[in-house]
Amino acid sequence: MRMVDVIQKKRNGQKLTDSEIRFFVEEYTAGTIPDYQAAALMMAIYFKGMSADETAVLTEAMAASGDTIDLSAIEGHIVDKHSTGGVGDKITFITGPLVASVGVPVAKMSGRGLGHTGGTLDKLESISGFHIEMSKEEFISNVNKHKLSVAGQTGNLAPADKKLYALRDVTGTVDSIPLIAGSIMSKKLASGADSIVLDVKTGSGAFMKTLEESKALAQEMVNIGNKLGRNTIAVISDMNQPLGYEVGNANEIKEAAEVLQGKKVEDLRNLGLELAAHMTVLAGAFPSYQEAYQVLEQKLDNGEAFQAFRTFISAQGGDLSMIDDLSRLPAAAHHVEVISDKEGFVAEIDAESIGVAAMYLGAGRATKDDKINHAVGITLNKKIGDAIKKGETIAVLHSEQPNPSDSLSKVKEAYKVSEDKPNKHQLIYEVIK
Amino acid sequence: MRMVDVIQKKRNGQKLTDSEIRFFVEEYTAGTIPDYQAAALMMAIYFKGMSADETAVLTEAMAASGDTIDLSAIEGHIVDKHSTGGVGDKITFITGPLVASVGVPVAKMSGRGLGHTGGTLDKLESISGFHIEMSKEEFISNVNKHKLSVAGQTGNLAPADKKLYALRDVTGTVDSIPLIAGSIMSKKLASGADSIVLDVKTGSGAFMKTLEESKALAQEMVNIGNKLGRNTIAVISDMNQPLGYEVGNANEIKEAAEVLQGKKVEDLRNLGLELAAHMTVLAGAFPSYQEAYQVLEQKLDNGEAFQAFRTFISAQGGDLSMIDDLSRLPAAAHHVEVISDKEGFVAEIDAESIGVAAMYLGAGRATKDDKINHAVGITLNKKIGDAIKKGETIAVLHSEQPNPSDSLSKVKEAYKVSEDKPNKHQLIYEVIK
Repeated sequence: MRMVDVIQKKRNGQKLTDSEIRFFVEEYTAGTIPDYQAAALMMAIYFKGMSADETAVLTEAMAASGDTIDLSAIEGHIVDKHSTGGVGDKITFITGPLVASVGVPVAKMSGRGLGHTGGTLDKLESISGFHIEMSKEEFISNVNKHKLSVAGQTGNLAPADKKLYALRDVTGTVDSIPLIAGSIMSKKLASGADSIVLDVKTGSGAFMKTLEESKALAQEMVNIGNKLGRNTIAVISDMNQPLGYEVGNANEIKEAAEVLQGKKVEDLRNLGLELAAHMTVLAGAFPSYQEAYQVLEQKLDNGEAFQAFRTFISAQGGDLSMIDDLSRLPAAAHHVEVISDKEGFVAEIDAESIGVAAMYLGAGRATKDDKINHAVGITLNKKIGDAIKKGETIAVLHSEQPNPSDSLSKVKEAYKVSEDKPNKHQLIYEVIK
Repeated sequence: MRMVDVIQKKRNGQKLTDSEIRFFVEEYTAGTIPDYQAAALMMAIYFKGMSADETAVLTEAMAASGDTIDLSAIEGHIVDKHSTGGVGDKITFITGPLVASVGVPVAKMSGRGLGHTGGTLDKLESISGFHIEMSKEEFISNVNKHKLSVAGQTGNLAPADKKLYALRDVTGTVDSIPLIAGSIMSKKLASGADSIVLDVKTGSGAFMKTLEESKALAQEMVNIGNKLGRNTIAVISDMNQPLGYEVGNANEIKEAAEVLQGKKVEDLRNLGLELAAHMTVLAGAFPSYQEAYQVLEQKLDNGEAFQAFRTFISAQGGDLSMIDDLSRLPAAAHHVEVISDKEGFVAEIDAESIGVAAMYLGAGRATKDDKINHAVGITLNKKIGDAIKKGETIAVLHSEQPNPSDSLSKVKEAYKVSEDKPNKHQLIYEVIK
C-alpha cells in the first residue's frame, strides 16, 4: 500500500477502506509515514469529509495506537462525561458527586492541559492536600468504595491522536468535524468507560459557534461511540456566556460546592442535573430520564450529593475544613471591581474574553511550564438579561496585583449592553442519541 | 506572518497577497517552513485554485529562488520552446535548425531527466563526439556564431520548484493546473529567454488527457509569461499517438535529420514548421505567421535548415559522417518484428505503452543512475488510420536481446484495431496567445 495512493483516493472523494485507514494510523504513529503526507491527507479530509464508517475506523485505530485502560475491576457500569470545553465549566464537580450519590461509579481520568483556567485536576488542587497521584489499584479501590475518584491521566493514551492533533494545529486542518469527533472519542475509548455522555457546547464561547455545527459534531461523536460498542449520548448546551458566576480555580470549586449545598445557580444546577440524569440512565440505574432527574434532584436538595463530594475530597487527602468553610479556600490579595460606564441590559458576555482576562490574572497556563495561581479569578456579578446601571459593579477580579488593567479592560470589553432586555439563551438545545 | 494563517486563508478560498506567497516560497526554500505545512498549502491550492495574479507571483518567486541565467550577451531576440512532453517528441531537432536558419538565436539549456526515452541531451549524444559541456562564454559565442547551441543545464535553477515538485509528487498534489503551470514557467523564466513558445500536448499519451485540461494549462502558462514580461504563446498539439514513427534516441535523431532533408513525415514536419513560425514571429523576424511559415518551408525544402543542423552538430564536436550517412548512427544487435494478429484499421496507439516498451529495451532511465543505450528503440510501421492485415509487421523493436518479449507484448497491447477506418486526430487543436 502506498500512502500517496491513499491521499489521492480521499482527494478524489472516494471512501477509504478499513485497511487503508489502519495502515495510515499505524504507520504514522510508527513514524514510517512522514508528517507531510499526513498533512496532505488531513487537508483532503477537511475538504472531502469522511463517512460515519470511516470516522469510526479512524477513531478505533487511534484508540488502539497506545495504552488502553482496563477498568473491568470496577463494580458496576462506568459512565464517563466529556465536555467540549467552555469558560467557567465546573460541571464535573456537580455531576460526579450526584452520580456517585445514587451508586453509579465515576472513574475519571483527567488532564491539566493549556487554557484560560486550569483543568479539572488544577481546580481540585485548590484544596490543600488533595492529590491525584495514585496507583491503578488505589484508584479502582477508591471508586469501588466511594463511587467517585479522579486521577491524573497516566500511560500513553491514543498517541496517534496526540501526534495528529499537533500536526493539524499547525496545518490549518483543525476545523473538520470527523477529525474533531475522532480525536475526542479516541481518548474516551482508550479510557475504558462503558458509556459516554457528551456535553457539546455551542455559542460564542465554544469551539463550535453555531448550533448547526455543534449538532453535526455531536451526531458524529454519538455515531462513533455507538458503532464502537459504547452507549453514547450528547447534550448540546449553551456557551454564549460563562457557566455560573465564577471563572478561575478555587472560586470555581467554591461555586460548585455551593450548588451541591443547594444554592440555586440556575445554569449550573440544571445542566448538572441534566447530565447526571443521562449518565445514570445509561448506567441502568433508572428506567427513565424523568425518574433519574427526580431522584437526583432530591439527592442535591437533601445534601447527599454534597456528602458524596466531601467523601471524595477526603479520600484523596483534601482538607475538608476548606469545603465546610469555603472562605478558607485560597484567596487573592486584591479584589478589583469592574464598574459599568453604560446603562441598560447585558446583551452579550464574550466568554472567551472573560477566559483571557482570567488567564492574564494567572488562572491558566499558556505553556506547559506555567504555574497556576489557584487564588485568582473572576466573579461575574451580571449575566445576560440582567439590568445594569452606570457606576454599578459588573464583575470582581481576584488579583494578586492592585491594578490588573489588562484584565480589567478585557472584562469590560466582554460585556455588551443593549437598551432593550434581550431574550435569554436556552440552556439545553438538544439531546442527541 | 504565520504559515498556518496563510494555509487557512487559502483553505477558506481567499486570495493570498503577494507578500504571503513570497513569504511561503522564500521560507520554504530556506527550510524554515517545514514540508508538512507546504503539503497542507498545496492540497488547499489543489481544492481552491489560485488566481492568475497569485499564480504569476508564485512563479516569479520560484524563478527568483535560485540562479537566473543572463543571456543578454547574445545578439538578437531569444526565443525558447518548451514541450509538456510526449513519446517520440524530437521536434526540438527540427525547430532549432529551422529558427536558426532565418537568423533567430536559439540558446537551449536542456536536462536529461527520467523518462521512457532519453532527454534532448541524451538523444544528441547518440552522435559520436557530440558534447554539451561548455563554459558560458563558449555557449554564448556558439549561439552568436551559429545561432543554435544546446548546453546542459547548470546552476541551481528554481530550487523552490524542485523542492516543491518533489513534495507534490508524494502528497497527491501534482494535478493542479496553477501549480503545474507555475512549475514549468518558473524554470523557463530562470533560463533567460525573451519569448516562449509552449507546445502543450493533449491526448492519451500526454500528461493532460483532455483538450479542456490542456487548454486550461496552456492559458495559465500564457497568462504567467505575459504577466511577467515574456511574450508567450501556446500551441496545443496532439499526443494521442507517438509523434513520427521513431521512438528511442539514435533513431529519433535519424528521423529528425530525414525531415530536415525534406522527408514528408507529416506530423513532425507540420508541427516543426508551426512552432518555428510562432518562434520567429515572436522574435520579430517576420511580420506575420503566414510569411514566417512560407519562408521556413523554403528553408526546409532547400536544405538550409539541414545545413544549420550540420553546423550546430559540428560546432559541438559531433561526427558529421553519422549525419551525412544516417546508417552510421548507433544500431542495435537485433531487429524484432511485431506481427499483427488482427485485421482492420489502427484506431488507437497508446503512446505511453510504446514509451514503456522503449524503456524496457533500455532507451530510457527509471532512476538517475541508469545508463541509456542510444541504439535501442522502436520503429512504428503503422499509425492511426492505417490499414492493417493479419501477419503484417506493425512495428520493429531495435533490441540488444534476441527475444524482448516484455516490449513485444507491450507494443502489441498499445495498438487497438477497429473494423471501420477511424477519423484521424487533428495535429494542432488551438493556438493560445
